[in-house]
Amino acid sequence: MSEGKTRRPRAETPKGFRDYFGAEVTERKAMLDAIAGVYHRYGFDPLETSAVETVEALGKFLPDVDRPNEGVFAWQDEDKDWMALRYDLTAPLARVAAQYRNDLPSPYRRYAMGPVWRNEKPGPGRFRQFYQCDADTVGSGSVAADAEICAMLADALEVVGIPRGDYVVKVNNRKVLNGVMEVAGLAGDDKEAERGIVLRAIDKIDRLGEDGVRALLGAGRKDESGDFTKGAGLDEAQTTIIMRFVSAKSEIEKRLIDLQGEALAVAKGLSAFVREVRDANNPVTRGKHLPSQLALEAHARVTLKYLSDIVEGSEIGAEGVAELEAIAEILDAGGYGPDRIVIDPGVVRGLGYYTGPVFEAELTFQITDEKGRPRNFGSVAGGGRYDGLVKRFTGQDVPATGVSIGVDRLLAALRAKGRSTADTAGPVVVTVMDRDRMADYMGMVAQLRNADIDPDNPAKGKIRAEVYLGNPKNFGNQLKYADKRQSPVAVIQGGNEKAAGTVILKDLILGAQIAQNATLEEWKDRPAQVEVPEADLVAAVRRMLAK
Amino acid sequence: MSEGKTRRPRAETPKGFRDYFGAEVTERKAMLDAIAGVYHRYGFDPLETSAVETVEALGKFLPDVDRPNEGVFAWQDEDKDWMALRYDLTAPLARVAAQYRNDLPSPYRRYAMGPVWRNEKPGPGRFRQFYQCDADTVGSGSVAADAEICAMLADALEVVGIPRGDYVVKVNNRKVLNGVMEVAGLAGDDKEAERGIVLRAIDKIDRLGEDGVRALLGAGRKDESGDFTKGAGLDEAQTTIIMRFVSAKSEIEKRLIDLQGEALAVAKGLSAFVREVRDANNPVTRGKHLPSQLALEAHARVTLKYLSDIVEGSEIGAEGVAELEAIAEILDAGGYGPDRIVIDPGVVRGLGYYTGPVFEAELTFQITDEKGRPRNFGSVAGGGRYDGLVKRFTGQDVPATGVSIGVDRLLAALRAKGRSTADTAGPVVVTVMDRDRMADYMGMVAQLRNADIDPDNPAKGKIRAEVYLGNPKNFGNQLKYADKRQSPVAVIQGGNEKAAGTVILKDLILGAQIAQNATLEEWKDRPAQVEVPEADLVAAVRRMLAK
Repeated sequence: MSEGKTRRPRAETPKGFRDYFGAEVTERKAMLDAIAGVYHRYGFDPLETSAVETVEALGKFLPDVDRPNEGVFAWQDEDKDWMALRYDLTAPLARVAAQYRNDLPSPYRRYAMGPVWRNEKPGPGRFRQFYQCDADTVGSGSVAADAEICAMLADALEVVGIPRGDYVVKVNNRKVLNGVMEVAGLAGDDKEAERGIVLRAIDKIDRLGEDGVRALLGAGRKDESGDFTKGAGLDEAQTTIIMRFVSAKSEIEKRLIDLQGEALAVAKGLSAFVREVRDANNPVTRGKHLPSQLALEAHARVTLKYLSDIVEGSEIGAEGVAELEAIAEILDAGGYGPDRIVIDPGVVRGLGYYTGPVFEAELTFQITDEKGRPRNFGSVAGGGRYDGLVKRFTGQDVPATGVSIGVDRLLAALRAKGRSTADTAGPVVVTVMDRDRMADYMGMVAQLRNADIDPDNPAKGKIRAEVYLGNPKNFGNQLKYADKRQSPVAVIQGGNEKAAGTVILKDLILGAQIAQNATLEEWKDRPAQVEVPEADLVAAVRRMLAK
Repeated sequence: MSEGKTRRPRAETPKGFRDYFGAEVTERKAMLDAIAGVYHRYGFDPLETSAVETVEALGKFLPDVDRPNEGVFAWQDEDKDWMALRYDLTAPLARVAAQYRNDLPSPYRRYAMGPVWRNEKPGPGRFRQFYQCDADTVGSGSVAADAEICAMLADALEVVGIPRGDYVVKVNNRKVLNGVMEVAGLAGDDKEAERGIVLRAIDKIDRLGEDGVRALLGAGRKDESGDFTKGAGLDEAQTTIIMRFVSAKSEIEKRLIDLQGEALAVAKGLSAFVREVRDANNPVTRGKHLPSQLALEAHARVTLKYLSDIVEGSEIGAEGVAELEAIAEILDAGGYGPDRIVIDPGVVRGLGYYTGPVFEAELTFQITDEKGRPRNFGSVAGGGRYDGLVKRFTGQDVPATGVSIGVDRLLAALRAKGRSTADTAGPVVVTVMDRDRMADYMGMVAQLRNADIDPDNPAKGKIRAEVYLGNPKNFGNQLKYADKRQSPVAVIQGGNEKAAGTVILKDLILGAQIAQNATLEEWKDRPAQVEVPEADLVAAVRRMLAK
């Protein structure tokens, strides 16, 4: 290498990218492995496509004059064809479903986990490479496929450590929304622009409230900074129809309160039942006590009735409600009641390509944000039915439905709740007192590595151990190293110990506790180390690890 | 999506890339997980860098006029800086070691597994994206670090299913070769070109034989097609010195035979011992019987003596031999005798950046090639010490050593030996006889998925099951689907069974065996199906799966 004349390269991760070290890697892997286990159990097979696709196959982005639009990382290959890094796992699936349509089983259930790349402006916590974890069923138009995805999502959340009551899978149907649009006279091809504005307005209900959404449906809205957003220009009647959908959640709540009124007339004790229904569907109170099946079923019934009312007269709307009913019935037969999966008209999902049921998994427990305020954790997964993606390639309709779990968000949730399960213990460190006896120390470490942590339970694996391989001159550095490695035990054998046929074991975890909590007097009385015969090395390390 | 006017995109994997389905993914994952377990036990921590690096950090390739040299996939970001996909896992490690040098433990042991990309002409079995699986120790100049990598490599091969005797880890030292060069008068900076030719000639010993290499060391060599390759232009004395290194293996064999002669004079019985030594170091006979420790130690001793002789007078050469001796001693102390790890002067390793010990893992069993001829499987992993990589960034010498396992080759070896262990069983398929009762079928499948395969051993996991989600009209298609999914059991419940409160289970594995081996008469007598009460569904499926 002759680097003489050129300046040194900068040792930097490229802008918007990051490195993952140690536990960051193993925790994510443990989570994805657990999810893969659930996907596998549901009959889904893994698929791993390459990171690189032709821009043509990815769609959405087409070579312009010089290079494709922003959004993907793209380049021209030697034949001047544009290639790009995949921006999600769904576009490659559509390509695979078309390319291998004669070989794959149909329906084809597949899961995929891996990085995707976005050429977007990086920001805090927003990276240009991140993981996705998807499961999709291609080739089934049955709502059973959608119901299955919802059940699988619930199982996946539980298997990684989100207990029942701390999450809810919410289901809605785009067809219900289409029905509402139809009733409001917004169904035609010439109304696409209005529908787009309406969709975006509905999606902002949490932020803008009902008045804000109403303004966007009409003439438009001026925000606090004075900026004006043009509205959809709907008239009063149209706005009322859309708002009946937007306010579905609060309206359903009102109906349940009416139900309570009726119930009171029958028997006062029933009010507890209705309170339970409301609590069960309130993210803040959910999980405090598990609602009764009866209460949740009442909620589902009221919801379906409400939706059915607001799409009255629309065939597509009625179809949507019927599908939601069928999904609820299927989930119920599998034991996935509304304590885990609920119909929620508030779920819209931004992506334009959804054509039927849409779902979202929300974590309902609270965390404290950076300003110390409690807030709901929120959404960690979403998906739905998209029947148009494969058609791009083949010209034929291929129904498909699927879900994508936000890997980083779910991982953050597990960490917030202290439920990340990956083994992050450091290795036993064999220190080097006499550099000429490296072979002896390597012999000790080999003994440890080849010994079971627990001879009665070989499934626990073998002891993790290493020799200090830096410059052994300064013994303090060796102990600092062991500390940095989060080592539980240091093994020491100097000349005296060698002569006596013994080794010293230092319990570094106990040592750290003593150093934190004890006075110097106590510290001296309880030295966290033992001297044992060489032949007992493995047994003594095992005892220390078992503490 | 308005695709109306544009032509349909081609559903094609980009040239040189491929998709991995089902077992291809799980088998690789099972193998990498097992290897990661070994790396972890040795105290190595995972590191996952992003796929994208700056071209500057990757080095080797520099932005030219328009775009970087061939070899990497590269593009310019919005600031006109060149970015590229990583072409290996070592260059990113060097960047990380420099970037985080104040935070990482030192020495830093890390492993990395993941895809790398090469912008090269694709060929049969040669793809532009493939996996690497590396472990490296950065910051230790001790040969104990090299020895540890060799021991770990042996453990990794065994844990994935290559038994002792079917592999050998070969160790050599670049310093020995440098010593030979020095003795031959090829040490100076002005001799770099000659050394390059000599290195390439030595690397061709297996293909060209000793005469071919001798020609390349001298004036040059004309190959069968008449093409002439210019030689290094060494004189007779220089050539003799280099050839003593090239013919080390056969010379060592001769010395062992001499030893045999001496041994015969002492006691005739010792000839068996020497035969054993030779057998043990012959890839074809290796593993037929395990050689005695004594025999292998004789081989190591003779090898070190031979190497020591041919570098006599060179300090660097003597240092190389001493390092090999130290490595052998350390490995021996850990129980890694020459039945697993041997000193082999034949290992040169192409990469220019190696500066000390080099290693290679070879599988010694035979496979039949595409023409039906037996051949040795060959190398599956390699590595060595490279002390210059981090210096590019920091200007300071940082010693490092590591190994890279060829993931695809090792996987191919495991498949060739039928030792790939991933669970590739298909799901139980619940068929749909009556599409209005989908909720019932989904209920059955949920029961199965939530049931342990073996209630006495929950570690075996839960039953893998799915409902047929295609169009249920044609029942034959459902069974064809189950077949394609390699399903072990099909569950059937039509109207009659529903009325009787039963289900039919079809044993598809037994069914397939019967269909292959039995006459029609026999087939009728042993229908591979049973009818059981609905309540016994799980128990009956368990019995069939346990067969």
